[in-house]
Amino acid sequence: MSIDLEIARAAKLRPIAAIAARAGIPDEAVEPYGKHKAKISLDFVEQARRERPRGKLVLVTGISPTPAGEGKTTTTVGLGDALNRIGRRAVICLREPSLGPCFGVKGGAAGGGHAQVVPMEDINLHFTGDFHAITAANNLLAAMLDNHIHWGNALGIDPRRVSWRRALDMNDRALRQVVQSLGGVGNGFPREDGFDIVVASEVMAAFCLADSLEDLQERLGRIIVAETRDRRPVTARDLKADGAMAVLLRDALAPNLVQTLEGTPALVHGGPFANIAHGCNSVMATRLGLHLSDVVVTEAGFGADLGAEKFLDIKCRLAGLAPDACVIVGTVRALKMHGGVAKADLGREDLHALHRGVANLARHVENIRKFGLPPVVAINRFTSDTEAELAAIREAMKEIGVEAVLCTHWSDGGAGTEALARAVARRLDSGEAHFAPLYPDNLPLADKIRAVAREIYRATDIALPDAVASRLRRFEELGFGHVPVCIAKTQYSFSADPTLLGAPTGHTLPVREVRLSAGAGFVVVICGEVMTMPGLPRVPAAEAIRLDANGRIEGLF
Amino acid sequence: MSIDLEIARAAKLRPIAAIAARAGIPDEAVEPYGKHKAKISLDFVEQARRERPRGKLVLVTGISPTPAGEGKTTTTVGLGDALNRIGRRAVICLREPSLGPCFGVKGGAAGGGHAQVVPMEDINLHFTGDFHAITAANNLLAAMLDNHIHWGNALGIDPRRVSWRRALDMNDRALRQVVQSLGGVGNGFPREDGFDIVVASEVMAAFCLADSLEDLQERLGRIIVAETRDRRPVTARDLKADGAMAVLLRDALAPNLVQTLEGTPALVHGGPFANIAHGCNSVMATRLGLHLSDVVVTEAGFGADLGAEKFLDIKCRLAGLAPDACVIVGTVRALKMHGGVAKADLGREDLHALHRGVANLARHVENIRKFGLPPVVAINRFTSDTEAELAAIREAMKEIGVEAVLCTHWSDGGAGTEALARAVARRLDSGEAHFAPLYPDNLPLADKIRAVAREIYRATDIALPDAVASRLRRFEELGFGHVPVCIAKTQYSFSADPTLLGAPTGHTLPVREVRLSAGAGFVVVICGEVMTMPGLPRVPAAEAIRLDANGRIEGLF
Repeated sequence: MSIDLEIARAAKLRPIAAIAARAGIPDEAVEPYGKHKAKISLDFVEQARRERPRGKLVLVTGISPTPAGEGKTTTTVGLGDALNRIGRRAVICLREPSLGPCFGVKGGAAGGGHAQVVPMEDINLHFTGDFHAITAANNLLAAMLDNHIHWGNALGIDPRRVSWRRALDMNDRALRQVVQSLGGVGNGFPREDGFDIVVASEVMAAFCLADSLEDLQERLGRIIVAETRDRRPVTARDLKADGAMAVLLRDALAPNLVQTLEGTPALVHGGPFANIAHGCNSVMATRLGLHLSDVVVTEAGFGADLGAEKFLDIKCRLAGLAPDACVIVGTVRALKMHGGVAKADLGREDLHALHRGVANLARHVENIRKFGLPPVVAINRFTSDTEAELAAIREAMKEIGVEAVLCTHWSDGGAGTEALARAVARRLDSGEAHFAPLYPDNLPLADKIRAVAREIYRATDIALPDAVASRLRRFEELGFGHVPVCIAKTQYSFSADPTLLGAPTGHTLPVREVRLSAGAGFVVVICGEVMTMPGLPRVPAAEAIRLDANGRIEGLF
Repeated sequence: MSIDLEIARAAKLRPIAAIAARAGIPDEAVEPYGKHKAKISLDFVEQARRERPRGKLVLVTGISPTPAGEGKTTTTVGLGDALNRIGRRAVICLREPSLGPCFGVKGGAAGGGHAQVVPMEDINLHFTGDFHAITAANNLLAAMLDNHIHWGNALGIDPRRVSWRRALDMNDRALRQVVQSLGGVGNGFPREDGFDIVVASEVMAAFCLADSLEDLQERLGRIIVAETRDRRPVTARDLKADGAMAVLLRDALAPNLVQTLEGTPALVHGGPFANIAHGCNSVMATRLGLHLSDVVVTEAGFGADLGAEKFLDIKCRLAGLAPDACVIVGTVRALKMHGGVAKADLGREDLHALHRGVANLARHVENIRKFGLPPVVAINRFTSDTEAELAAIREAMKEIGVEAVLCTHWSDGGAGTEALARAVARRLDSGEAHFAPLYPDNLPLADKIRAVAREIYRATDIALPDAVASRLRRFEELGFGHVPVCIAKTQYSFSADPTLLGAPTGHTLPVREVRLSAGAGFVVVICGEVMTMPGLPRVPAAEAIRLDANGRIEGLF
């Protein structure tokens, strides 16, 4: 049994009603799902937003990821626990894990060690069914689209220009590209199609950006599923699918409440991909959290160039949120990899490599400041880190005026993150944040891409093929010039080349394709390969997963 | 708004803990899903089976269905309510509705009028997520199968002989027949595939016949997914998928508790197709119900030739259940259709047609007696029924020694079914039941088909093509000669010809194909067309479904 699972199983969970009470949520607003999970009613979410004061918002992001790992989720959990320990009422907000990857190579996504959200097995499996509801809504739209074509195609949909794909929460490469509607007249018109994993569905992105049920139904209606022969967009509303999709998502839109091992309330809700979508938990959960606490600690996917940029330029912009501080997580090991050390050699002290690698961290710090946010660096400590290495990072950060704090939440829980909590609290109390998105709404779409590429990725320019540029102009003609851009590129480098570690400059961002996510409310900008349906590895984790004689799960984590 | 929905919304639901308490279920065994749904822990199910006395079992089945409708589900609900009214502690057991058809033509499947299980919207939509879990287990197996072939195919699977299909809970004709794994090397080996609606998945059938988690894991492992080039079967266990599938189904296997409008405890759990599977709720729920009550009232799909036969020859045989009585539901209108009246003319009294149509009912009565069960006929009353018509049915039934009782549960709830409840109670108290399945386990498979065809369908014989006969012998060689047969034929006639209404004789049952459901534990015998993935109609119900300004569902029922 893994250490994470051992710790999680040894934990004594509080009844979910007690956690709700701790967050000031009345009993009648709690819809229990078993004894340790609950949904918080949408009525209460509305009421809290009207009546209760709004707390501060702290984003946890990270350096550019490496195979050494950084620990953003554990830091988010640890920081939430520690803020509560030092007397700030904190709530954390996290994404829901996807089911599919559990059976592939990775374990769960509910933190680790003594910094976990529980019940971890439930959270990693079906949880409260949100992703299944999103899958159903996605696939109802697909079925209604093909059904419309089958019965006469009154809207004049061009079957060659259907962009809506089906979805499953499963790693299944066989479904990436299919030909459907085979078998004769009764089965419709054969056409190419494919499945994405559900976290890549635009329904997921729209769900996570929706501000209310009404807003969700509106967003679903705006989703563009195809074009007619004369290139007019066809929407979910044209197919009259938006209402039924919203009905399928009604219960799911209520935020989920669970707890950390130390009893901090955790809202775990929604989980869009961090490449073709914005990669953070739902607006519903974040806004609820803000009205339940002094501080919400939340997390964004990948490194700060992708996750934080999208959190700030997409989620905060669209939802009217203004964060108050930003924690950037790094490790000695990962920074040494950015400095050129191979994974096998990470156990050895290497101050030169570390010094080179710190450039990655320093640039993320600079970038966060461009959004008007005070950064704090969290060094997620590993046993192999030497005092000299830790001192070197602190020194380098001091030179650029940012506090770097050691964290040992994996082994010590919230007690290991108290120093970080105090550093964050100082930034919050200073009132120094003056958040603004990177670019204004009214900038042309191409210039928005350019702004992110130059200011955040530090590219010299973008390479925009004519066809792509004209597609962007088309989106502007359709009335979507005001939306933010959501750039999908490798998470391993500031550039689009995953091998350029550290803090590269002089590169060009190659834009390959753009897609309008009209329901979510952004333009996806694809730079490089993007995988929207993972496969299983040669030996899937699933092969070792089973129930023991007591009905307990073996091998999942 | 429909009358059913109006009644359901006007109802004052009791907290689910109160319903559980009424059934003698302790608080700690109740896993709430919201305020009005719960799962009952598997530990308690085991304990109740060990420690508590076992009640009686009553099956509700029907005449051969017609477009006029019979009302088996409402009769089941009404009978349960009425048994409680006359002082018998009753629990009802029903199938869970499938989500897909809600968006097509039909409404919900939670009863109607004053004979409903509630909360009906939840039950008809995601409920407690069981079908989503079954979908995930089905599709994990599919993904692991194609993944195995992709990575080297060590088991030597013949990709032309993969029989395992993917599943969705959606009416989507476009997915009936697809070619998958297109797009190049990274996406696997292209092959033909297709999707079934999840109620047609063998995982659903195995789930509903499983007796415990261990038994479920065993059954999943036995599922045959493909053959090798030399025709050896390849199972889910060979792919090491059984454990992870069981993990996905662990929570789902716990029976769901809801309530009728009158507060009768209702276990609504599992819902396999009634053609290629056995069409009744889970063994887990039925067995739990028997140890919670004096009487369990449960329902089987389609008419008694299909639903009751499968309930008795498959579910009761495999689970060791011995029913004590059987209610056969009919209506004047439907019997007149069996007597040759067109649907438009059903409002007019027609005693001659009724007399001809009663032959259908009488034959179902005879058939039920062949299983050693005392039948009671329930006449589900419509306002257009005349006294003469009702008297004619009672008279005809009296001639064959069976009580026929008028029921008005749709308009009157349990008060309208008290006479039926008393008639059923008399049969239960008489101790006259001496249940035995129709054929012994050790009969050759072909003779089992012949037994059902002759004894129940009253066919002269079966037409068994040589290839099909040799396939049956192959199943026997593989060690599956002892299992029951599950015959898929039209529900509209005793014969395989849907236009032969009433009580036809002299026909031959044409067997087209046989399939081994090794995990469920039966051989599927396909006679005629079987649709395992419905489509949506020209104007799907989904188009009218949406949320109103208060977040309530419009247009679903």
